[in-house]
Amino acid sequence: MADKGKRKRRRADADSDEETRLPFKNILKPDSAILQILKDLTAATAAASSSSKTLTLADIDLDAKCREVSELNLLSVQSEIESQILKIARSILAGNGFGFDVPSRAATNQLYVPELDRIVLKDKTTLRPYANISTVRKTTITTRIIQLVHQLCAKNIHVTKRDLFYTDVKLFQDQSQSDTVLDDVSCILGCTRSSLNVIAAEKGVVVGRLIFSDNGDMIDCTKMGMGGKAIPPNIDRVGDMQSDALFILLVEKDAAYMRLAEDRFYNRFPCIIVTAKGQPDVATRLFLRKMKMELKLPVLALVDSDPYGLKILSVYGCGSKNMSYDSSNLTTPDIKWLGVRPSDLDKYKIPEQCRLPMTEQDIKTGKDLLEEDFVKKNPGWVEELSLMVKTKQKAEIQALSTFGFQYLSEVYLPLKLQQQDWL
Amino acid sequence: MADKGKRKRRRADADSDEETRLPFKNILKPDSAILQILKDLTAATAAASSSSKTLTLADIDLDAKCREVSELNLLSVQSEIESQILKIARSILAGNGFGFDVPSRAATNQLYVPELDRIVLKDKTTLRPYANISTVRKTTITTRIIQLVHQLCAKNIHVTKRDLFYTDVKLFQDQSQSDTVLDDVSCILGCTRSSLNVIAAEKGVVVGRLIFSDNGDMIDCTKMGMGGKAIPPNIDRVGDMQSDALFILLVEKDAAYMRLAEDRFYNRFPCIIVTAKGQPDVATRLFLRKMKMELKLPVLALVDSDPYGLKILSVYGCGSKNMSYDSSNLTTPDIKWLGVRPSDLDKYKIPEQCRLPMTEQDIKTGKDLLEEDFVKKNPGWVEELSLMVKTKQKAEIQALSTFGFQYLSEVYLPLKLQQQDWL
Repeated sequence: MADKGKRKRRRADADSDEETRLPFKNILKPDSAILQILKDLTAATAAASSSSKTLTLADIDLDAKCREVSELNLLSVQSEIESQILKIARSILAGNGFGFDVPSRAATNQLYVPELDRIVLKDKTTLRPYANISTVRKTTITTRIIQLVHQLCAKNIHVTKRDLFYTDVKLFQDQSQSDTVLDDVSCILGCTRSSLNVIAAEKGVVVGRLIFSDNGDMIDCTKMGMGGKAIPPNIDRVGDMQSDALFILLVEKDAAYMRLAEDRFYNRFPCIIVTAKGQPDVATRLFLRKMKMELKLPVLALVDSDPYGLKILSVYGCGSKNMSYDSSNLTTPDIKWLGVRPSDLDKYKIPEQCRLPMTEQDIKTGKDLLEEDFVKKNPGWVEELSLMVKTKQKAEIQALSTFGFQYLSEVYLPLKLQQQDWL
Repeated sequence: MADKGKRKRRRADADSDEETRLPFKNILKPDSAILQILKDLTAATAAASSSSKTLTLADIDLDAKCREVSELNLLSVQSEIESQILKIARSILAGNGFGFDVPSRAATNQLYVPELDRIVLKDKTTLRPYANISTVRKTTITTRIIQLVHQLCAKNIHVTKRDLFYTDVKLFQDQSQSDTVLDDVSCILGCTRSSLNVIAAEKGVVVGRLIFSDNGDMIDCTKMGMGGKAIPPNIDRVGDMQSDALFILLVEKDAAYMRLAEDRFYNRFPCIIVTAKGQPDVATRLFLRKMKMELKLPVLALVDSDPYGLKILSVYGCGSKNMSYDSSNLTTPDIKWLGVRPSDLDKYKIPEQCRLPMTEQDIKTGKDLLEEDFVKKNPGWVEELSLMVKTKQKAEIQALSTFGFQYLSEVYLPLKLQQQDWL
């Protein structure tokens, strides 16, 4: 067709224009060479995860001093609730009154454990007695939440925190009160929030070489078009993961995700592409961890070159402070920082006008991160972050568009993989 | 199995507890009766949409006075750009200089047309000459954006507004400048923004009785588990819609969507459930319209009982003011307001503590809405909105959880459908 010929010619013109002004395109090796590098990485990751067992608190003799929750099934949660209630009944009958022993979730009760590379909760607890004017309300709320959770388990349905709040607005008054106590209840029962059947809104999407079951339906993520598959809010209904991917590409932002999905990057370099579209939510964190654990694939992260990019990476990797009691279930070990790293800005000749000056707040956040144990542990990260704070420059992933919209998928990422340029 | 028996017994107990305290559960007819009502509605909607052709500006003799853009294919966009550039070249050669005739998108150039039930743009344009100190920058930006769009069409790829901005930060300075001009370019070329291959981040999800193709992959939305399918950002790659649904249920919020998805409400009452998780985004609006147009199904909306719920409904229905030039492609005609409506609060005995007092700002927004033509057109809406402003009470969809987490899917919605209680 004439039209088609016309379009082809135009395309060829555009391509040759590009060749001349795309840094590093000429040093890209053929895909087969890059694929071999990825295969070696995948094999090494799988070998590492099967030879070295994952360390637990017990392995480093911290299990008596620290507290962790675990994923429990519905009947176990119900039994745990019932035994708590029996314990309380006995305490009342023995004349010792009604109260809960609540693990403290304060900052002073948190600890970063280098051996585990994540933040955990220490063992301090606080008594929450009913017969005390300052705690009677919170004790009542705790009892009510436990009762509601028992109901959810009995019916085997999932609800949001907002639903939970609305079942007893008179008592809870505002949602922050029921939310806080819900986290307490997780700690009291020793199970994850998702075990309680209370879920967060879904936010993340996944596309690429992954097949899994969601609530009984088999999902093939290579057949999800450009939109991808929404990550299910309830991880306990996700299973049967299968994949021929060589790695997982964790992307901070939506725009980069869409570029890679439209270009079907996962067909050129077999991978699974996942994003939480900004701040990591619980569902995406659980999903990433499950992929890593079941598929034993390396995880490479593509984030903005700013302190928040590294912070986001660290939440996936080591956990957030306010959910430290659940870090063992929410964190994904050994995430590599692929890009965009501060040193990439000069290396890839990102023009000055595509870099942004860091604000005072940015610089402060960067300096604070330099003090964190999980950054200090990785000398490469310290070096990159120090460079960022020194140059006072940041850049988004999208800054690569300055070399053409597809520079990210056609040059930057392939070259990063070819040069094994991750930290 | 012993466990299973135990669980069943518990479930039965919980159910009988509920019976006694669930308003209206006793007047629910069998599903077959409700399905018949829905079938009649669907048939009426299909008949209406095939007999009455959709009115256009030309039908009401407004086409000379108003301006609308349309969905164009890639080659047409390219041709349109090329003819604009030729026109400018001729103007320069004729000694008349270089400039663009840009349709005004100001509020004074907008018009609500009751016959069409949407906001359109009038025909005022402003000259944007290059040889003028006050417009030279904007003219340059316009030229650059047109050039970039031409490139996108030639390559047939989609990018975000953010990508576009980063291709020439030096010129655009900040993203609001390239965004504004992008809308101008839509108007100049007379095509929708999605025809320009510039897309917004995806936000919406869809689940239920719908099969469609996304970028060549066939997607069955009954097999998407609880997470649902992310609505693709690029509507031009969506096609082949098939459905045996009786209606489309448009849901404002994520939490209600998840309840309905987990309960597989669409299997009990065949429907397609869609949500933009709050404010409607362009991708979800385009997707809803496409479903309505191709499947000819009635659309029922479930939003919060507050002014913003109605506002969101109106954006889906009549369009938003700042994209009025594209209202014919973005709006879905004839959306019914199913709930939660102000009159439902008393009717369904929502307890006082689950209602929220409206703020001054809420009341102002409500009063402003009462002045809008698209509200005035529907006497039922005026009545409901007046009631809201009078009682100064609002409530979220989640307030129904006060009667149990599944009251929404098991009583409220079925009863609404049974009583044909939509406006």
